[in-house]
Amino acid sequence: MPFGDDMASLPGSANLLLTTDMLMDGVDFDSSRHDWRAIGRKAMAVNLSDCAAMAVRPAAALCAVALQDRLAMEDALEIVRGARACGDEFGCPLIGGDTNSWSSPTVISITVAAAADEPHRPVRRDGARPGDRIALTGPVGGSLLGRHMTFTPRVPEALRINRTLAPHAMIDVSDGLAIDLWRVLDASDCGAELSAAALDAATHADAHARSARDGLSPRDHALYDGEDFELIVVVPADAATQACRDAGLLEIGRCVAGRECVAIEADGRRAPVERRGWEHFR
Amino acid sequence: MPFGDDMASLPGSANLLLTTDMLMDGVDFDSSRHDWRAIGRKAMAVNLSDCAAMAVRPAAALCAVALQDRLAMEDALEIVRGARACGDEFGCPLIGGDTNSWSSPTVISITVAAAADEPHRPVRRDGARPGDRIALTGPVGGSLLGRHMTFTPRVPEALRINRTLAPHAMIDVSDGLAIDLWRVLDASDCGAELSAAALDAATHADAHARSARDGLSPRDHALYDGEDFELIVVVPADAATQACRDAGLLEIGRCVAGRECVAIEADGRRAPVERRGWEHFR
Repeated sequence: MPFGDDMASLPGSANLLLTTDMLMDGVDFDSSRHDWRAIGRKAMAVNLSDCAAMAVRPAAALCAVALQDRLAMEDALEIVRGARACGDEFGCPLIGGDTNSWSSPTVISITVAAAADEPHRPVRRDGARPGDRIALTGPVGGSLLGRHMTFTPRVPEALRINRTLAPHAMIDVSDGLAIDLWRVLDASDCGAELSAAALDAATHADAHARSARDGLSPRDHALYDGEDFELIVVVPADAATQACRDAGLLEIGRCVAGRECVAIEADGRRAPVERRGWEHFR
Repeated sequence: MPFGDDMASLPGSANLLLTTDMLMDGVDFDSSRHDWRAIGRKAMAVNLSDCAAMAVRPAAALCAVALQDRLAMEDALEIVRGARACGDEFGCPLIGGDTNSWSSPTVISITVAAAADEPHRPVRRDGARPGDRIALTGPVGGSLLGRHMTFTPRVPEALRINRTLAPHAMIDVSDGLAIDLWRVLDASDCGAELSAAALDAATHADAHARSARDGLSPRDHALYDGEDFELIVVVPADAATQACRDAGLLEIGRCVAGRECVAIEADGRRAPVERRGWEHFR
C-alpha cells in the first residue's frame, strides 16, 4: 500500500492524524522469550514512535488482538496492561478495541489518533532540501539485543524539535537508518552525504556487540538493523548548532542535490548507502 | 477488554469516534472459499456497521494486514481494493495502513474514524427504558449461508433513524440478536419481552434454510447465529408508527422493568432468550 508518511491525515482536518501498526508473534516479538506486558508495551510504543516521527501529540488508542487460544486470560490482560501503561505515559489512553482468539500465533494491532501541536504543523518526509543537515535523536544499531522491546518513543523530543528547530523532514528509524533515510530522500527528491566518522559516533554499543558476534561491521548494523525507533531529523542548513545540541541531536551528514546517498570516509572515499533494511514483501 | 459501545469517543471530543475490528482467516472468513476482494470488503463493512450502530458518519479508515506469505501480491491488492471500494461507497476513504507478511493465516485489521451527524448525537447502548419499543432494520438468522460476507452496513438507515426517531439505544447484530440485545439490556439495566410471532416475522429465509438442514428451529437461528449486521433499534414508546414503518423497522418487542428477556408465544407461554451467541474467549 503506497502510503506516504508515518501517519495519515483525516480528510478535511489535516491536523488530526491516524497511524496503525500490527505486531505478530515470531516476527515482531517472541512470546517464548518476551513477557506479555513487554509485548503489549511494544505494540503501543511503535505507534507512539509514528506520532513522534510527525511531531504530533498522541490522543487515544485502540487495540485489536487475535490471541492464540492457548493464552491464559491473565496473559491477554497483561498485553492490555502493557499497552495501556505505555500509552498513559504519553497522554494516549487506550479507549477501545476488539478481542478475538484463534489457534494461530498472537497478533496485536494498535491504532493511534494524534493531533498537531498547534500552531506547529505535522512534519512530513518530503521537505528535505539540498544543504539541510541530517541528524539522529540517538545512536542506532544492534537493537535486536533487546532495545527493540524496550525503546522509548521520542514523542516529547519530537515536539520540542518541531517547536525549536522547524525541521524540514522527519521519520522514525523502524526498518533501519539506511532504508528510512532513503524514504526521506525519495519523498524529497534529493540525495545525502553522510560523514563516516559521524556515523561511527552515532553507532550504538549494541551494534558493536553484535559485530563482535557476527563479523559484520558495527556500521553495517547501524545502517541496516532497524527497530531503533530514534528519529531522523532534517533541519535547515542555518539551524542553530546550539539548539541542535540542546535537543540532543547527533548530526550525521547533509542533504545534497542529486539522488545518491553515500558515506564519506576521512580520506575522501565514498561508500554507497544501500536502499535496504527490514522490509516486508520484497 | 470491557469496552462499552460499538465505537469509542476521543477524549475531549465526544463527537469524534473510533472503532476497530480484526478478521482472521479460518474464523471470520475462509480464503479457500471466499475471494480476497470479498474478504477485504467484509473487513471494511464490519467496521462501517459499528458506525451504523452508533448512527455516526464514517470519515476515514486504516487497514493493517498480516498476509500469509503464500499470498500473491495481486491477492493482497485485492484485499485493499475490496476494502477501499466498500469504504468509498460510504464516504470512508482508506487513508493508510501497515502491510506485513508471515507464515500463519492472514489477519486483517481495519480501524474507522467517524463523526457525529451533528446536531444529532451518537446513539449508545445504555439508553433503553421500560416501555421502549425494540425493532430490527431487517430480518436475521442464517447469515453463514453467505450474507455474512455480502451484507450492507446500515449507515444511511442509521443516520435517518437518528434524525427521525430519536432512538434511545442501538447496536448492530454482530454476535447474534440474543447476545447483542442482552448487551443493550445490560447496559440499560432493563429487561425485554419479545413477541414470538414478531420474531418469526423477522426471521430471515436463510434461517429457515439452515433449519431444514440442521434441525434447529428457525427461531434459534434468528436469535443465536450472528453476523447479520442489521441494527437493533430501541425507540421511545411514543415513536410514530408510520415513521418506524418508513424506516423499514421490524418491531419485535418492548423493554420492560426487571432483568428478564423472554419471547412470548400467542398462548402466553414465556421462553427465556438466552445470553449466548458468537462470543470470543468464553
